[in-house]
Amino acid sequence: MEYDWSKRFSLLAQRTRPPEISWLMAQALEVPGLISLAAGFVDQESLPHEEVSRILEPLLREKSAGQAALQYGTTQGDLELRQLLVQRLRAEGVFHPAAKIDESHMLIGSGSQQVLYLAAEALLDEGDIILLEAPTYFVVLGILQSRNLRTFGIDTDADGIVVEKVEECLAALEKRGEISRVKMLYLMSYATNPLGITLAPERRKRLLALLQSYREKGYPILLLEDAAYRRLGFADPIPHPIKSLEADNDLVLYTESFSKTLSPGFRLGFGVGPKSLIDKMVDLKGNHDFGSSNLNQQLLKTILSSGTFDAHGQTLRRVYARKCEMVLGRMAETFPPQAHWLRPTGSFYTWVTLPEAWDTGPRSEIFKRALAQKVLYVPGCLCYSPDRPEAEHASSMRLCFGMIGEQQLLEGYARIARALREVMG
Amino acid sequence: MEYDWSKRFSLLAQRTRPPEISWLMAQALEVPGLISLAAGFVDQESLPHEEVSRILEPLLREKSAGQAALQYGTTQGDLELRQLLVQRLRAEGVFHPAAKIDESHMLIGSGSQQVLYLAAEALLDEGDIILLEAPTYFVVLGILQSRNLRTFGIDTDADGIVVEKVEECLAALEKRGEISRVKMLYLMSYATNPLGITLAPERRKRLLALLQSYREKGYPILLLEDAAYRRLGFADPIPHPIKSLEADNDLVLYTESFSKTLSPGFRLGFGVGPKSLIDKMVDLKGNHDFGSSNLNQQLLKTILSSGTFDAHGQTLRRVYARKCEMVLGRMAETFPPQAHWLRPTGSFYTWVTLPEAWDTGPRSEIFKRALAQKVLYVPGCLCYSPDRPEAEHASSMRLCFGMIGEQQLLEGYARIARALREVMG
Repeated sequence: MEYDWSKRFSLLAQRTRPPEISWLMAQALEVPGLISLAAGFVDQESLPHEEVSRILEPLLREKSAGQAALQYGTTQGDLELRQLLVQRLRAEGVFHPAAKIDESHMLIGSGSQQVLYLAAEALLDEGDIILLEAPTYFVVLGILQSRNLRTFGIDTDADGIVVEKVEECLAALEKRGEISRVKMLYLMSYATNPLGITLAPERRKRLLALLQSYREKGYPILLLEDAAYRRLGFADPIPHPIKSLEADNDLVLYTESFSKTLSPGFRLGFGVGPKSLIDKMVDLKGNHDFGSSNLNQQLLKTILSSGTFDAHGQTLRRVYARKCEMVLGRMAETFPPQAHWLRPTGSFYTWVTLPEAWDTGPRSEIFKRALAQKVLYVPGCLCYSPDRPEAEHASSMRLCFGMIGEQQLLEGYARIARALREVMG
Repeated sequence: MEYDWSKRFSLLAQRTRPPEISWLMAQALEVPGLISLAAGFVDQESLPHEEVSRILEPLLREKSAGQAALQYGTTQGDLELRQLLVQRLRAEGVFHPAAKIDESHMLIGSGSQQVLYLAAEALLDEGDIILLEAPTYFVVLGILQSRNLRTFGIDTDADGIVVEKVEECLAALEKRGEISRVKMLYLMSYATNPLGITLAPERRKRLLALLQSYREKGYPILLLEDAAYRRLGFADPIPHPIKSLEADNDLVLYTESFSKTLSPGFRLGFGVGPKSLIDKMVDLKGNHDFGSSNLNQQLLKTILSSGTFDAHGQTLRRVYARKCEMVLGRMAETFPPQAHWLRPTGSFYTWVTLPEAWDTGPRSEIFKRALAQKVLYVPGCLCYSPDRPEAEHASSMRLCFGMIGEQQLLEGYARIARALREVMG
């Protein structure tokens, strides 16, 4: 018998659970022919294998560039890549014109996920408080739970997080003498996972002003602005990020991922923010892995500077907008009238809510019927901070139209409709 | 003024310091024409850019394989890659014939560094105890310090870690009632960094037997066997790893890196060990980054199965053995008679010790003269656990003959010789 190391785990390890989504995926493997609308994978068909192949081959063939790409890079990330990204971001209006931001304020990570993890590791001790949207990106909840943090879910509506609710929450924490424990507000500012909504411009301003007022009172709270889907919006103009409203590069750590906009296979993303924080995250990353794949960073640099990245972004917006219209049409035709959903502003999630009487959780009748119909979804309850009322958790579902092809998608949504109708009548 | 986030750092972040080696590297940048024998980078000239280019291009060009390589992989690592690696390791004698080991016992990480970090995160709480060689791989010391662990450095000689000293250390800890806090023994079993020595076969057996006796007493201690340099030994036969002596896959987490044997640019390595530990490390990795670059894993699979990897290993052993003889020759010719060194059994480090009167530390006269001679080395003091006596720290140096070309190497070692002679007469 192998020794069971669980008896020796650290406290952090004991609190780290396999993500619920793993359990969902395992279900998927056991049901042949199942269509998964659960995983947040990207459109397979548009993955730019030819473009990457065309760029990679000469890059590696040339001796000096090829060997440099195969050598170690730096922990913070390739200098020229960071320079190129900062320059692009400035041109796109991501930074305030007065903000003094250069490549030293940026860290390249193994996906924006790692940037998020490093920010949490840099700032958060047990018992610290973090605010986030309700519902939010469920993977973040797992990270926070493993660190024994207290999370507060804030109401959202079709315009994004409700700033008055953030204000109320902070005021209540201040009254209870806990405001100094609030270290971070995490939010997605574009086409959120799971709601598909984009934070309204006017709320961006008010949210930053609110955090600035707390900073002035001596309580700086980091705003982790996850802009993973900024480049996957369906309609122009896309509002500028919260980062762009900040003249002093003070409170906002802005992150993007190349997983959704280019390829998850590269495992690259970045964070840009206050230097003191970035420097510490670099030190932490040095302990983690010395830096993300240098080969992939060299590749990415060429993909960015050749125009391939921007052209591919155009394609992706078209692909997802088309898929979105298609599934919205199918939902309107087939879903029971009690079901409601938001129109996504970008990315690839639809969020369906049912009247509170109908449970969608992993042990619910609806979930079982969906599995019987050979279709999988993410139960909405996984996306809520545990402080939120249970009734709210129970009756929503995230359906992802990212990865799978159009015909399969239509069939997948139709199967969800059948499962809902079987249970709800 | 940007806000200084250091006032808000977590305890772990406060304890995480930039590695001393960063300071060394910064020095290097400021001295034009400097030859760095400090960084543990690999031979640049032999990096297989053409082979990788030849394999990558068709892999990506083909639609289905290419798009799959650009999609997300799994957190644990590509299934086929793990199967292939386990099969190869078994054929190489890395596992005990009776050991039931399959791909579920393996995790692919972003270098073996990440595997190490995840093992530490999985097992170690503040105040826990870890044993390691004196001197040891200095990056590990940084990770352990950031977690506020207690480290005990164990004597080594030309045959590796002295098992009697491990025994004494554990007995003393048992007597003090602290044995249950000992969670790990970290060691390199082949051509260690920094000593270049390979643990003698007979010591491998005794060390494992010692740990097994503690496991039977109810105190399992993980043996983290870092075999990063197993494939870079200069002489056959290479002894089997400690892992191979264990019939039950119980106490040894065995790791290898592809950074030294193929390319650091891929940022890939693996760990293989007890399932309960691997499973938890996979959960932790899910929070870190969802898994290492899938593109690089697909590439690696082809490189392994095409024979390119093994052929390249042959080349590397030849390259480093030749460089080794060369620098040993230069040392014998030019170094002052008070300097002693070990003959490396593989990899690319020479370890020089001076009589205790001569300080080699970052503020020493020798270090300053070396910089004036435009050559950089790693002061030996960085490689010792803080519990070791200070006198021992003070008078050794690590010289790496990995990255730079032969002419530069000869000049670099000659510069060290001049610096030593200037100070020591």
